[in-house]
Amino acid sequence: MSARLTIALDAMGGDYGPSVVVPAALDYLAKTQGIALILVGQEALIAKELAGVRHDERLAIHHASQTVGMDEPPSKALRTKKDSSMRVAIELVKSGVAQACVSAGNTGALMATARFVLKTLPFVDRPAIITAVPSQHGSTHLLDLGANVDCTAIQLFQFAVMGSELVTAVEGLAAPKVGLLNIGEEEIKGNEQVKRAHELLVASHLNYVGYVEGDDIYLGDVDVVVMDGFVGNVALKTSEGVAKLLARRLGNSFKKNWATRLAGLAALPVLNRFRQTSDPRRYNGASLLGLRGIVIKSHGGADRIAFENAIRIAEKEIHSNVPERIAMQVASQLDDGRKRAAG
Amino acid sequence: MSARLTIALDAMGGDYGPSVVVPAALDYLAKTQGIALILVGQEALIAKELAGVRHDERLAIHHASQTVGMDEPPSKALRTKKDSSMRVAIELVKSGVAQACVSAGNTGALMATARFVLKTLPFVDRPAIITAVPSQHGSTHLLDLGANVDCTAIQLFQFAVMGSELVTAVEGLAAPKVGLLNIGEEEIKGNEQVKRAHELLVASHLNYVGYVEGDDIYLGDVDVVVMDGFVGNVALKTSEGVAKLLARRLGNSFKKNWATRLAGLAALPVLNRFRQTSDPRRYNGASLLGLRGIVIKSHGGADRIAFENAIRIAEKEIHSNVPERIAMQVASQLDDGRKRAAG
Repeated sequence: MSARLTIALDAMGGDYGPSVVVPAALDYLAKTQGIALILVGQEALIAKELAGVRHDERLAIHHASQTVGMDEPPSKALRTKKDSSMRVAIELVKSGVAQACVSAGNTGALMATARFVLKTLPFVDRPAIITAVPSQHGSTHLLDLGANVDCTAIQLFQFAVMGSELVTAVEGLAAPKVGLLNIGEEEIKGNEQVKRAHELLVASHLNYVGYVEGDDIYLGDVDVVVMDGFVGNVALKTSEGVAKLLARRLGNSFKKNWATRLAGLAALPVLNRFRQTSDPRRYNGASLLGLRGIVIKSHGGADRIAFENAIRIAEKEIHSNVPERIAMQVASQLDDGRKRAAG
Repeated sequence: MSARLTIALDAMGGDYGPSVVVPAALDYLAKTQGIALILVGQEALIAKELAGVRHDERLAIHHASQTVGMDEPPSKALRTKKDSSMRVAIELVKSGVAQACVSAGNTGALMATARFVLKTLPFVDRPAIITAVPSQHGSTHLLDLGANVDCTAIQLFQFAVMGSELVTAVEGLAAPKVGLLNIGEEEIKGNEQVKRAHELLVASHLNYVGYVEGDDIYLGDVDVVVMDGFVGNVALKTSEGVAKLLARRLGNSFKKNWATRLAGLAALPVLNRFRQTSDPRRYNGASLLGLRGIVIKSHGGADRIAFENAIRIAEKEIHSNVPERIAMQVASQLDDGRKRAAG
C-alpha cells in the first residue's frame, strides 16, 4: 500500500464514531480511485460496522486502544491518550504511512496533538484553522476559527499568507483576494493588532484588498477573510445559528395549516433544491494549516455525507501539496519583509 | 408641548435623510397618541417633505444648519458640527425638551456626541450599544455592538447589568437570563477578560446562565448576550450577511424556470409571511445604554418602516424610564460587590 496515496481516518472521533466514519469511508471508496483509507480505532467496533460489507484492499484497519472524549481537555488527551485513534491517525501522517488524516474529534485535542506530533512549519508561529463557507459567487475561506484566541499582528499576517496559499493550491486561484476582518465605525475602527496587521498586509505581495466587515464574508467579493480565533469562532457559530433559525421558520411557515401544506407540496422540489445548495454538509471539513502534514477536522456532528466531504478535502490537499506550498510561501513572504527592511 | 412626551428625530441622518425620516414620523403619529415629535435638521428640506401633507401640532420642526456625514470621523463631527441635526437632537434631550432622540446617522459620531453632551451615568465606565435580534422563542438582546473594541472584565460586567435591566424595563422580564459569549474549545476557551468577567457575573445577583456560543444567540434560551464591541459588531454583520445570502438563494431557486415560478406562485402567501416574520426592519433600533438620556440609533439604510420601529423603541424606553433604572441597577450591583468584598 506504500506507493498509493493514503488517508488515515480517526474512526472513533465525533458524536457518532465508527457508525458514521465507516459508512463515509465506504461511500468515498466507491466513488474514488487511487486513494486508500486506514480506519484507526478499536478494531472490534470498526469490524462490526464492516460486517457483511464488501470492500477491497484500499480499506485497512489500524487498531488503537483509546478514544479521546469530545469534552476532554487537550492537555489530558496529550498526556494520557498516547494510543488514541486521534493520535495514532496523526502519527500515521508523521511516519509517512498516510499523507493526510481526518478526525471529527474535539478540536482542541486535535490541534494540540497535531502540533505536538507533526510540529509547525518553519517560520509559522501558530497553526490556524480554516474552512470555506458559501457566498454569493462561490465560497469564501475564513481563518482562524478558534485555535488562537489572542493574536498578534504578525500571527494575523501569517494566517493571511497561509490562507491565500491554501486557496491558490486547492481552488487554483492565482492571486486570491485577501481581506482583514474589522468593524466599520471610523473612530472606533479596529483594535491595535488589526491595525498593525493591516500595515503588514498592505506592504506584502499578497492580493490584499483591505478591511472587510462581517457581511462581506457572504458576498463573495473576497476569497480569504482573516481574523483572530475568537472572532472567527463566533462568526462561524453565529452564521450556523442564523441559518438554522431561518430554515426552521421557513419550514414552520409551510406547516401552519392545510392551505400552507398544499403550497409547500407544490414548492417541495424547489425547496429541496434550495436546501441542497445551502447544505452545510457540503462545506464540512476544516483544515489545520501551518503544520508539517495535512490534518482535516470534520464537524463533530457530521453525518456520513458530511464526513465524506471532509475526506475529499484531505484528498484535494494531498494532490496540491498544501504543507510544502505554505512553507515555501511563508518563508518567501518573510524574506521579502527582511529584504524590504534591509534595502 | 412641554407637558407632553417628546422624541427628537435627527431628520438628516442615515442614507436617505428627510425622505425617510419625515414619512416615518408621519406614519408613527398616525398610529400613536400622546407622543410629540420634533424633526431636527434643515428646515427647507424638511418642509419640502411635509409640503401638502396634513399634520397636527404633535409635529414640530427645529432648524439645525449642519449635517454629520455618514463617514465623518466622530472627533471632527464633535469639533466642527456644533449645529448638526444630530447634535441638536441630543441637546434637546439634555435640556429636557425631548425625552429621547433617534438618529440614523453615523454610529461613531452619534456615540461620541451623545457621550459628550449627555455624559455617562454614575459608575458606568463606557456606554454600550444594544439591539434585539430574532430567536426561536422571541428575541435576544446583544451588547456591545461596536462602541467598545477592547473591553475589560469590569466593562463586560457593566454591560451585563445594563443589558439585563433594559430587558427587564422594556420586555417586562423579572430576571432576564444573561449569557457571556465565549468559544467552546476547552483549552483555548476564552480570553482573559472573558474569564474574569465570568467570575464577576457568577458572584453577581444577575440571572447569569454562564458561557454561551454564537449559535445560542438565535436559539433564544437566553435573553441577553454580552460580548465586546468588536465581536458584537462582527456577530451582527455576519448574521445580516447570512440572512441576505439565504433570502437571495431562496428567491433564485423559485426564479429558475417556468415550473419553479409556478411553484413560487403557489407558495407566495407562505413565502411572504415568512419574509414578514423574518423582516430585519422589525428589529431596527439599537439603544445607546449607560448615558443620562435615551438615544436610539437607527440603521443607516433604514426605510420608513424600519425608522418608525426605531421611534417606537424610543417611546418604549421613555415609558419605562430606562436611564434611571440602569443608574439604580449599576449602583446597586456595585454596592453589592463592595459589601461582599468588605464582608
